[in-house]
Amino acid sequence: MLAAQFSRTGAPADVLEVVQLPDPPAPGAGEVLVELVASPINPSDLLTIAGSYGVKPPLPAVPGYEGVGAVTVIGEGVTHLKVGDRVLLLTAPGTWRERVVLKAASLFPLPPGDDLQLAMLGANPPTAVLLLEKFVSLTPGDWVIQNAANSGVGAAVVAVARARGVRTVNVVRRESAVEDVRALGADVVVVDGPDLATRVHAAMQAAGGDPARLRLALDAVAGRGTRALMRCLAHGGTVVNYGGLSGEPIALDPRDLIFHETTLRGFWLVPWFRKAPPGEQALVFGEVGRLVATGALRTPVEATYPLSQVRAACAHAAREGRGGKVLLVPDGASHP
Amino acid sequence: MLAAQFSRTGAPADVLEVVQLPDPPAPGAGEVLVELVASPINPSDLLTIAGSYGVKPPLPAVPGYEGVGAVTVIGEGVTHLKVGDRVLLLTAPGTWRERVVLKAASLFPLPPGDDLQLAMLGANPPTAVLLLEKFVSLTPGDWVIQNAANSGVGAAVVAVARARGVRTVNVVRRESAVEDVRALGADVVVVDGPDLATRVHAAMQAAGGDPARLRLALDAVAGRGTRALMRCLAHGGTVVNYGGLSGEPIALDPRDLIFHETTLRGFWLVPWFRKAPPGEQALVFGEVGRLVATGALRTPVEATYPLSQVRAACAHAAREGRGGKVLLVPDGASHP
Repeated sequence: MLAAQFSRTGAPADVLEVVQLPDPPAPGAGEVLVELVASPINPSDLLTIAGSYGVKPPLPAVPGYEGVGAVTVIGEGVTHLKVGDRVLLLTAPGTWRERVVLKAASLFPLPPGDDLQLAMLGANPPTAVLLLEKFVSLTPGDWVIQNAANSGVGAAVVAVARARGVRTVNVVRRESAVEDVRALGADVVVVDGPDLATRVHAAMQAAGGDPARLRLALDAVAGRGTRALMRCLAHGGTVVNYGGLSGEPIALDPRDLIFHETTLRGFWLVPWFRKAPPGEQALVFGEVGRLVATGALRTPVEATYPLSQVRAACAHAAREGRGGKVLLVPDGASHP
Repeated sequence: MLAAQFSRTGAPADVLEVVQLPDPPAPGAGEVLVELVASPINPSDLLTIAGSYGVKPPLPAVPGYEGVGAVTVIGEGVTHLKVGDRVLLLTAPGTWRERVVLKAASLFPLPPGDDLQLAMLGANPPTAVLLLEKFVSLTPGDWVIQNAANSGVGAAVVAVARARGVRTVNVVRRESAVEDVRALGADVVVVDGPDLATRVHAAMQAAGGDPARLRLALDAVAGRGTRALMRCLAHGGTVVNYGGLSGEPIALDPRDLIFHETTLRGFWLVPWFRKAPPGEQALVFGEVGRLVATGALRTPVEATYPLSQVRAACAHAAREGRGGKVLLVPDGASHP
């Protein structure tokens, strides 16, 4: 079977190979065979291949942290899954391969829906739920501000916040992204630049909001982006950083922390998968699964590539100014 | 009477003047006349004169946030104070003047002690107590790390931590400061530089400590200092920034926040004076007053200057490599 693989860390164009791996054996008792349906290319995948992520798999390694698969063969004693069921490929890393045998106990059938949207259910939507839930207690009518609003997490934050009655200020880097983000259901969209806080507060007020209710900022950019969000917050607010898309260190004026009693925290989804009890995980996936099923959470898709073109797919995923996610599908699959 | 005063913000050498102000009237009912005994020059004073602090007094203004005075005239109906009592000059800003009339209700007599030490009781020692208390719950045997350990707050942190059974790692910028900080009762003292975390953990272990119990860092430096402390902390630790002595923005790698689930917060004493109930303030001043009375908390003093030489005093206070605090005393006073 085909798989993507890297034997040393580096730029995906230099180190990523398409290889033939042996097919997995037939599933044993309590196992199922799952065929890849679609797997997105996330920033965390590119960072893992580059060796800059918090997870450093033993090499050679097959990348890929999430995706959706179809159950094709059922092992003995498995009763809660049937052939054709869609399941999350949360066996990370390693989803960028054609097929895999998985323990059935950790799998649950997904509700029917768009396969590409289901492939993106495992990482960004739970990230959005936890960013909105674990740091500041928000009630309907409160506001949250985020940068990189046209990212996968950004779209999920808009959808989850909206479902909870929390309003969103969305910062994008270019004018051309404004309409896309507004179409997701964003309350306020502003383009990054000088006087961000003044423009954000004016836009909130024009939308009937109170800047004193903006106590949470979600930062995927780092560099100067962190401070720009911090300055929009009400006194005592919290910035949660969950990415470094700018590639720059976070730069903060200590006076913003001291005189405004601000908090900066970091969030990473991986420990949550390890530590959160199954009941809490089921609640979170239940919430985001319903949002995908109803179409309230729809992550823009820019392109799909067959697994054999994984290098071109990664190059596309790393490109500035994308309009949506890039996903891998099996060679020969027909996807929009 | 003499006072220091500035009519525009800027470098103290450019904007600070020594002026004659009218003497205050005789104290009325419920008031006392208090004569300056000593007032320290803190970084917050220099920042206020420069216009870079969170407090911007109406101009012209008399600087000075803390100090100790002697009660010299008692107004009608005041029974809890007598002539000669030492009281804190917490009527900030404005302590850099020879005498002032104050409401007696906000004053309490200080325990007998060294006047210069009492003059430094109002800001740094409560800062140390609150830094050790408000962010991470510490129990005896836990550790805390701080930079600028040979500062006024640094000395107070060592004394308060020691009294509570909490052990300290102290980072200084130069070898010549190591012995001074050790003499305060520090458990571990290290000189800033490469591989700080490795050296800190080795020194902790040599002192019988466990790096997993280092969950709080106190940062007065900003710049690269914040990140250097952050990297010494156990997973999930907290850095509290309360100053920017380096003059540089805080620079952080977002991965330190995300993968180590670290928190960065800011602390400022001023809102605590405004918001903490009197009982909480009395508890804090009681704790630090006892530490001064027993000699457990002793802030190094580098020099005293008469009020009329306030410019020279500020220049001295701003100098790199000081070995202790610079204080103002009345002209004609005899202090060591």
